[in-house]
This record gives sequence, structure tokens and C-alpha cells, in this order.
Amino acid sequence: MHYIEGGWPGANPKDTELFARARDLDLGEAKLVAFGSTRRAGLPPEKDPCLSALLAADTPAVAVVGKSWTLHVDQVLRTSRKENLRMIADSVAFLKEREKEVIFDAEHFFDGFSEDPEYALATLEVAADAGADWLVLCDTNGGTLPWQVEKVVREVRREFPYVSLGIHAHNDCELAVANTLVAVQAGASLVQGTINGYGERCGNANLCSVIPNLQLKLGLEVLPKEKLRELTHLSYFVAELANLAPNPYQPYVGRAAFAHKGGIHVDALAKAPRSYRHIDPELVGNSDRVLVSELSGRTSILVKARELGEALSREEAARLLEEVKALEKKGFQFEAAEGSLSLLIRRARPDWRPPFELLDFLVLVEKRTGKEILSEATVKVKVGEEVIHTAAEGNGPVNALDRAIRKALIPFWPQLAHVRLTDYKVRILNGQAGTEATVRVLILASDGRRQWATVGSSPNIIEASWQALADSLEFPLVND
Amino acid sequence: MHYIEGGWPGANPKDTELFARARDLDLGEAKLVAFGSTRRAGLPPEKDPCLSALLAADTPAVAVVGKSWTLHVDQVLRTSRKENLRMIADSVAFLKEREKEVIFDAEHFFDGFSEDPEYALATLEVAADAGADWLVLCDTNGGTLPWQVEKVVREVRREFPYVSLGIHAHNDCELAVANTLVAVQAGASLVQGTINGYGERCGNANLCSVIPNLQLKLGLEVLPKEKLRELTHLSYFVAELANLAPNPYQPYVGRAAFAHKGGIHVDALAKAPRSYRHIDPELVGNSDRVLVSELSGRTSILVKARELGEALSREEAARLLEEVKALEKKGFQFEAAEGSLSLLIRRARPDWRPPFELLDFLVLVEKRTGKEILSEATVKVKVGEEVIHTAAEGNGPVNALDRAIRKALIPFWPQLAHVRLTDYKVRILNGQAGTEATVRVLILASDGRRQWATVGSSPNIIEASWQALADSLEFPLVND
Repeated sequence: MHYIEGGWPGANPKDTELFARARDLDLGEAKLVAFGSTRRAGLPPEKDPCLSALLAADTPAVAVVGKSWTLHVDQVLRTSRKENLRMIADSVAFLKEREKEVIFDAEHFFDGFSEDPEYALATLEVAADAGADWLVLCDTNGGTLPWQVEKVVREVRREFPYVSLGIHAHNDCELAVANTLVAVQAGASLVQGTINGYGERCGNANLCSVIPNLQLKLGLEVLPKEKLRELTHLSYFVAELANLAPNPYQPYVGRAAFAHKGGIHVDALAKAPRSYRHIDPELVGNSDRVLVSELSGRTSILVKARELGEALSREEAARLLEEVKALEKKGFQFEAAEGSLSLLIRRARPDWRPPFELLDFLVLVEKRTGKEILSEATVKVKVGEEVIHTAAEGNGPVNALDRAIRKALIPFWPQLAHVRLTDYKVRILNGQAGTEATVRVLILASDGRRQWATVGSSPNIIEASWQALADSLEFPLVND
Repeated sequence: MHYIEGGWPGANPKDTELFARARDLDLGEAKLVAFGSTRRAGLPPEKDPCLSALLAADTPAVAVVGKSWTLHVDQVLRTSRKENLRMIADSVAFLKEREKEVIFDAEHFFDGFSEDPEYALATLEVAADAGADWLVLCDTNGGTLPWQVEKVVREVRREFPYVSLGIHAHNDCELAVANTLVAVQAGASLVQGTINGYGERCGNANLCSVIPNLQLKLGLEVLPKEKLRELTHLSYFVAELANLAPNPYQPYVGRAAFAHKGGIHVDALAKAPRSYRHIDPELVGNSDRVLVSELSGRTSILVKARELGEALSREEAARLLEEVKALEKKGFQFEAAEGSLSLLIRRARPDWRPPFELLDFLVLVEKRTGKEILSEATVKVKVGEEVIHTAAEGNGPVNALDRAIRKALIPFWPQLAHVRLTDYKVRILNGQAGTEATVRVLILASDGRRQWATVGSSPNIIEASWQALADSLEFPLVND
């Protein structure tokens, strides 16, 4: 990343603190940018609190946003169009005199240009004349189409041949990535965006798609190759920081981005990798994922087993495929539950011994008038020759079962204390059977280093949960 | 929707059954389409099982996919390029002779065109000569850029001025919507896509973005205005069917798509609605989130009360709205559970007396080695002054509870024997809390004359199920 915009100093204490604490950070080649707006109408720049806060942030570069759309000047700012131009010129000049690299963000530029192109261009002109290093064209409301973006950027490029241009796109029409690419084609060299496209409303241009598109499709060297390989990890890392579930369908970096199901696709991929994928996923740190389901053939089981380092014979693979098919008929689904699939493959080994066995359980949910609901589980678990009989309460029957089993297992495998269930999903398969329906439970678990998904299925939700739960605890024991 | 592709008949029993059952559906103006591939190499079309299954599906239109990329012909199909052309021609001709509308899907057309344009065009030519009604250019791997799509579609348009063209885009570069729009600009008149963009890997072109872009930005009348207003509802409905959480950041239809935070934006919106939004959200059935949510809440409660013949004062409506909000904060959702909403309105009456009360329950799930799993529920229910204490077994804990309650109530209200639970859905609200997550249960019930939906929510799945279950049995008693 060449620039990192850290927030709006002075707007709130958190943003101000960020810049104070960022002074000690080593950001490598990235420049930290403070964001703010042009000075207020009628105020000299020296007395403007926003510009002062920008200086106080003490960053090598600043981004100042100014109005380019007459609608906003007239009806939102409610100042004169001339004063708005002076506000832009004064603010940029003030910051340039103080030796900042200045990025001028022309807010609503495309809307402004379509209604009053002369005025919109005039806002760029005063910024450029005052010394702005970058003129960034913003599609603030996200309503502009790619061919409109292209035409406008070309026109601006012609008008300002010696100033560097940037693009700032929003995703309100699901076009932010496309608009960014056409702007680059038309002459923009600075792209503003966010990791995973996080941003207000429908988000900003998603850098996890923009970067590989620019680098792998347009052939521009945006990042060193080895950095591009960190993109998938970066996407997960930022999702984790933001406490948002990663989007599995996200282009390039999503879990499903290079997933292939069904015998035909997998077969074709083995014959010619280019046949069913548009890039080699390793370039962005992702990988091919073979989905095993009732539609898929023996090849996908063999591929999956190879991924796990298990050498299966063709006969063993065929037998396993039959087992997968039979389980899927009962409601299991292994496409989204690779953890359970890998255990199924391990269990096919003749010398397989499970680390633990659940012998008995009893789950109880009790509600008595005037009392809190109670959920309790007792379990009897066998580890080696030892039988552990214990019990726990929980927030609900499944949570009680989860706690009781962990209580039994943690003395043997203390590492299970670090296993967190990060997602728990219940799907009713034949909802029309009402409360007699078959239930499929999917559990996603993590130990901080890796994630795995497991599945259970039964007309009994407790049993289905138990199956997925047991697999989610067995997986790390088997794979360590 | 003008065409609805229902699946691949013959590929699996589920898809075949869909077409058999769809015969009785009234799809309005939409044509059902069966999907399949061109005949196998070396097989006459009459003997090809896939083409026979297409005919057996008995739909007005069929889509046949054929290979346009020499890489696939040579290395995946492993047949001669000539035979592939004959396979396309024969299959289209066979279906045209049987009076089908034929959509020819040219698989990997853009990849094929970039490597061997002559051959790619030849595949279209034989399809057109055999009578194909549509030539659909597919970006199967989703790796093509908008300007490439535009150039290729223009070229195909020139070569085939009298055949209708279509576009089928995938989202692997986050460009499916843009690629679809430029294809339409370049001459395509059939758009293939899916609601919410659901589809393999990163998904297909998202019709919830494509449709409003075409209609509101390009000015094409794709749908009647009043249908466009159902788009947001449609998006939620399909997410619900697919049991996927709706994406709040989704363009046009997402909950956050027209969310405005902070005083400045909201203030500006009040001064000039165009200032911070690219369209009027009502055009797609969505709404500005800050401005109207509370108002619309009260209105819908008043409307619902009027439907039920309950005259609520504005104050009562406001109080009820507060209650609804508090319950929604706990995980209830009344949009899809009008049965529970109507009970809430009834309960607001000062003279309200519930037909029955559940005093206590105890639910037990037991598994002992070598034995079938047992689910049993005991309930204590009060009807008038009488207390009934009874028990039942079931397929699972919720089913046991359901049976026990009915057993208690049916002697008082024999009509409950006709109430069937027709759907039972479980949704985990904060999946990241693992097995401690809050659970929302939606139940759809019917007595053969009408259907009603009810909701429950709790961290305890049994309690959430009980709430929805109790409402589903109370609803017909209150409304008769």
C-alpha cells in the first residue's frame, strides 16, 4: 500500500489518538495520510480548526475534500460558488506552504461534472494551481456507470495533462471495481479503496479485487509478486480485526473463489488447469478447493485424500464415495464441511483408532413457572481405557453438551481449551415435515491458527449437533 | 422475469422432479427453461440421454450449452473440432424440430474468442444456422474485463446482425454486473443472472443490481415500475429460501444501501434528497434507513391492526411499536411472522385472556450405547382453571414438545388436530458465538384453509421453538 488514510483528526478523540500513536509505527514504504475538509466559508485558513488538526496529525501527506457539485455548494454548504473555489485554493495552498503532499478529493465530481462541467473543472483547476499533488475524482454517491467514468476521466486527463489523477469509487451500483479499472485505463494512477470493500452503505472499491485485476489482468505492477501472495491472508486479517465474518464468495480471496464441484469440472481441471479457473489461485495466496458432494466423482475424493497426505487405492476411494453418497442422502453435506470429510478419509484407514468415543449422553431442558430455563447435559466419554462421566450446564441444550464434552476431554488434551466454535448453523432440510424435519448442523471452529468446518445430520437436533461437535473437537487431535 | 432456468433434467432426481412438478405451476409470463448440454460425441441426437431428458422436461424453452473454446474441445471433451461443431448443430436442430425455443449457451466464449476467434465464431454460426433463437456469450470462468466484453459482443453483433444475443457473466473479478451492462450496451438483449448473485464460486451476475441499473440508469424498461418496487422483498425472500443471511451491504436492496449516518448526511438529505443518494430507494422497494424506519413501523402496525379489526389509538400503536422494537432487539423478526405480530396486537387489548398457558415443561434427549436415541417431553398446561400434565415422545426434542402440547390441548379444541406445521426454520443470529448463539425459529402452520407464520427467539433453541410453537397453536384459536 502506498498511502494509508488514517481518519479525520479532530473529528473525534479516537481518530486524533490514532495519529498520535501512529508516529511510532514503521509503515515501511506506506505514507500515512490525514483526511479533512477545505476551510470553512469566510474563515482564514490559519484559523480553521480542521486545517489545524490536519497539521497537528503530523503526517507526510494530507487529503482534503472539497465540493465539486454546484448542488452541494448551493444547497448543502449554502455558500457562493466563488467562495467555494477560494476555500479549495486557500486550503491547498496553506498545506503546500507547510510542505505537505496534498491529495485533493473532489467530492461528487461525476455528479457535478454531469450537471455543470465547467464549474466542476474549475474546482480542479484552483486546486492544481494551488499546488495539489493529486486530483482525485470521487463518485461519492456511487451512482456513475463505467462508460461515464471513462469519458469524464479522459476529459480531465486532457484538461490537466501534468497533474496526477486519482479515482475514488463507491459500490452502490455494484460497479466500484469496474469504475476503478476504467479510470486507471483512462489515466488515473491513484486508486482509493478499502480491504474487502468495507465502507459506508454498499462499501468502497474493494482493493482485494482491484489489486489482482490491475496486476494480473492489466499487467500493471502494483505490488511485488510475493506481496500479492499475501492478499488472501490480508483479507482474513482485516475481517478478523473488523469482527466481520469473511465473505466466502469474495472474488480472488474468498474460500469459494476457486471451489470446484462435480465430477466434470474436477476432471477437466486435472486435464487442463486453465479450463475452469481464470488465474492460478496461488498468485493471490488462495488455493483450489475441491468440493465433494453426491454429484462428484471418485477423482475429487482422491484429490482431497492427496491434499491430506493419505494414499487411497482406487477401491478405497470408490468405497468412500459410496459412504459419502449414503451420508448425503441422510442429510450430511461435505461441500462446506471439509473437516468432517477429512476425518471420514482418515477413518477409512484399517489401523484407525478414534481419540475418544462418546458412549452415552443425556440432555435436559427444564422450565418451571417463575424460574429461569435450565439446560443441563451429562456425558459418558471413553478415552483409551478410561471412562469419564461428567455434566455441565449451558445457555441451551447444545451449549450444555458442548461444555460437558470439553470438560471430559480437556484433561487429556489441554489444547482443546483454545478451540473456539466460531460459527454454528442449523438448516432444516425438509421443512415441510414441521418439527419432525431432518436437521443439518454445520460448525466452524478455529484454534487461532486455522479453521475447520464439520457437519452432522439427524431428525434430532441434539444428535446432529453432537456429530458436528464431536468432529470439530476430533479434527485438531487427529491433525496435530 | 422472462425466463426461469429450472435445472438440468436427468442430472439428478431432484432436478427431474422439479420439471414434473412445475407443470402445474402458473408462472405468469415467465417461461420455464430446462438446461442441458449438446449431444455426446459420436451419438445420434435421438439416442442422446441428455437431449431426451430435455424433451421429457416438457418446457417451452431449453438452454443447451456447447463448447466454444478449442482448449476444452481438445483437452476436456477430447473430440475433434469438427465433431464439436456437428454436436452443436445436431442438438440445436433436434430441439428446433420439436418446436422448442432454443437458447444456445456458448461456454467459455470470451476465452475461446481470445485464443481462436474463428473457431469461437464458427460455434455460434452452426448454432444460428440450426435455428437457435438466442446466442448467449458466456464468461464461464469470470475472468474477462468490461472493455474486452464490449469489444467481443460488438464484433459478434456485427457478424450475426439478425440473431438475438445474450450475456452470461460470472463474478470472479467482481465485474459481473459491469460486464453484463456493457454487453447490453453493445447489443445483448438477454441477461442471465441470479437473485442476489448466488452461484458457484463468486456467483453469477446479480440481477438485484443488474435490473435497477438497466432500468434506472440506462432507461430500459426491464420490468413494470410496480414490479421493480418488489425487488428488495424478492431479494429477502430468496435469501430466506436459500437459508442464507441477507447481505446488508448489497447494492440497491441491502439494509445499509440507503443508510445515512451522522448529522451532516442526514441534514443534507433533508435539504436536498439527491445530495447523498444516487436514486430514490422506494423505486426498488427499499428505504432511507435513518429517516423513515420508525414512521413506517408505526404505519404498518396500524395497517395490520385495521386488517385484524382492532382499532388502536396512536398511543397504543406507539407503545406496541416500542414492544416490537424491544423484541426485535432480542432476535424476533415480525416481517416474516405476521401470525405472531397479530397475536401481539391482540394481547395489547386490556381485556385480553390467553386461551391457554404453558406452566412448565421438561424436555429430555437421551442416548445410551446400543440403543436408539430417545426424546421425551413433559408439559403442564393451564386451560381456564384446569391444569393438564402430560408427556409424549418424538423424533427430536422439539417434535416431542409439539406432540405433548397438542395432546394437552386437543381435548379442548379438536380443530387443532387439523393444524399441520408446514415449515420449521432455524436461523442462528450471531453464529460467531458458537453454540451459545441466539436462535430464531420461524414456524409456518396451516389448517388447510389458511397459513400463518410465527416466530420465537432465545439463546435456547427449545425455548425459541416453544415460543413459535405456542403462537402457531394459539393463532387459530384466537382467530376463529
